[in-house]
Amino acid sequence: MPVVMTIPELEGFLAAEFPQAFFPGSGLSIEALWDGGCRVRQAFREVSLRPGGTISGPTMMALADIAMYVALLAAIGPVPLAVTINLNINFLRKPGRCDLTAEARLLKAPVAHATSTYSIPPGQR
Amino acid sequence: MPVVMTIPELEGFLAAEFPQAFFPGSGLSIEALWDGGCRVRQAFREVSLRPGGTISGPTMMALADIAMYVALLAAIGPVPLAVTINLNINFLRKPGRCDLTAEARLLKAPVAHATSTYSIPPGQR
Amino acid sequence: MPVVMTIPELEGFLAAEFPQAFFPGSGLSIEALWDGGCRVRQAFREVSLRPGGTISGPTMMALADIAMYVALLAAIGPVPLAVTINLNINFLRKPGRCDLTAEARLLKAPVAHATSTYSIPPGQR
Amino acid sequence: MPVVMTIPELEGFLAAEFPQAFFPGSGLSIEALWDGGCRVRQAFREVSLRPGGTISGPTMMALADIAMYVALLAAIGPVPLAVTINLNINFLRKPGRCDLTAEARLLKAPVAHATSTYSIPPGQR
Repeated sequence: MPVVMTIPELEGFLAAEFPQAFFPGSGLSIEALWDGGCRVRQAFREVSLRPGGTISGPTMMALADIAMYVALLAAIGPVPLAVTINLNINFLRKPGRCDLTAEARLLKAPVAHATSTYSIPPGQR
Repeated sequence: MPVVMTIPELEGFLAAEFPQAFFPGSGLSIEALWDGGCRVRQAFREVSLRPGGTISGPTMMALADIAMYVALLAAIGPVPLAVTINLNINFLRKPGRCDLTAEARLLKAPVAHATSTYSIPPGQR
Repeated sequence: MPVVMTIPELEGFLAAEFPQAFFPGSGLSIEALWDGGCRVRQAFREVSLRPGGTISGPTMMALADIAMYVALLAAIGPVPLAVTINLNINFLRKPGRCDLTAEARLLKAPVAHATSTYSIPPGQR
Repeated sequence: MPVVMTIPELEGFLAAEFPQAFFPGSGLSIEALWDGGCRVRQAFREVSLRPGGTISGPTMMALADIAMYVALLAAIGPVPLAVTINLNINFLRKPGRCDLTAEARLLKAPVAHATSTYSIPPGQR
């Protein structure tokens, strides 16, 4: 999956097609593209804070969603009507007041990809 | 799971604790509470539109997240530090320019809850 | 989504097409069909037990998978090549030494369907 | 997360605690362990075939489940009562009549991990 769009082309496409998500002041920027993947940064914004000083789940979901879309566009070119049909997210640690970077990776080679969460009874660890 | 908070109490709690998500102009309102569930409305906002005139995935994810949090708070009372550890969403149909309502339901009784997506080969249906 | 297959037709189809999963002695049976849904029973089998006397996760995943496939077949007729593209399961309570029943429901009407898991800090509840 | 159990110790533990899943003839074997991860092989078995000559979803789910459990045990030692609370699986390509290997990796460092599936309208690609 070679990269078929440049960072400026992608940022221009997103600003034109998704101005509500990708606008000056959104804090979003594409940092890197590679075969089948990308890294997107969400600069810290006060509006994303939640009680306890952590960044909200929807902020992380939106960043994951846009990073995966960027990885897709970089591989297949500008397809404005590609639609997400499923998103599954596990929240592992609470981020503090900081920028977030998301790395997205397209999966085609494996036969399946699974994620799982375990609970370990207290005192057993 | 009887309801332990009223709609005004919940809206007051959310406005105080999550002012970035639940603010005047956010378009969010709690419409109904019942044992183990609730209904939350997201009024239509231009900022949520995506190409093709549909409402963005992150808008639906944020609405699902807040509806589930409201159902939880209504059942257990104000617990600001309850944290989402997993969210899985399937997008089934594209909503147009309209309000969205989310109904959330707490699950405790079943032993497991699964969602699945099928693909049906063209011409077989 | 009216039902287009009967229970005997479905059980015959599954026994012919999926003999490794749906065989005499598998303990699986279709209990009921209705518009857009079904109930499938997995009789208790020693082979499904795990330490602590609970039924294994894969047993519940396989039951969920077959129940959803039965609901699909009942609505669209015998389509052997329909394929699952995603399955997400939350394990809520540990079942003991007993039969399990799974109720499956096809979702088309809503715009999205989400499931979420919360963690509540100890002592806050 | 250094490895705290050897392959023979893990295989012995699984054979003792999960004899219904990990038994001679199950076709399961642990191939490799490393810091925070492992690779588990499921030898091909006729019983796993589905129409079209592909390996069943539940076979892949069970393999994913056991691989993740092995990775966990290797990192924290024998904890028979660790329980899966969520499993999400995306089926990407249909495997034919062959062995399957699963690589599991424990995630602790990132703040969140998301998987997503896209649909691309025909003719747009």
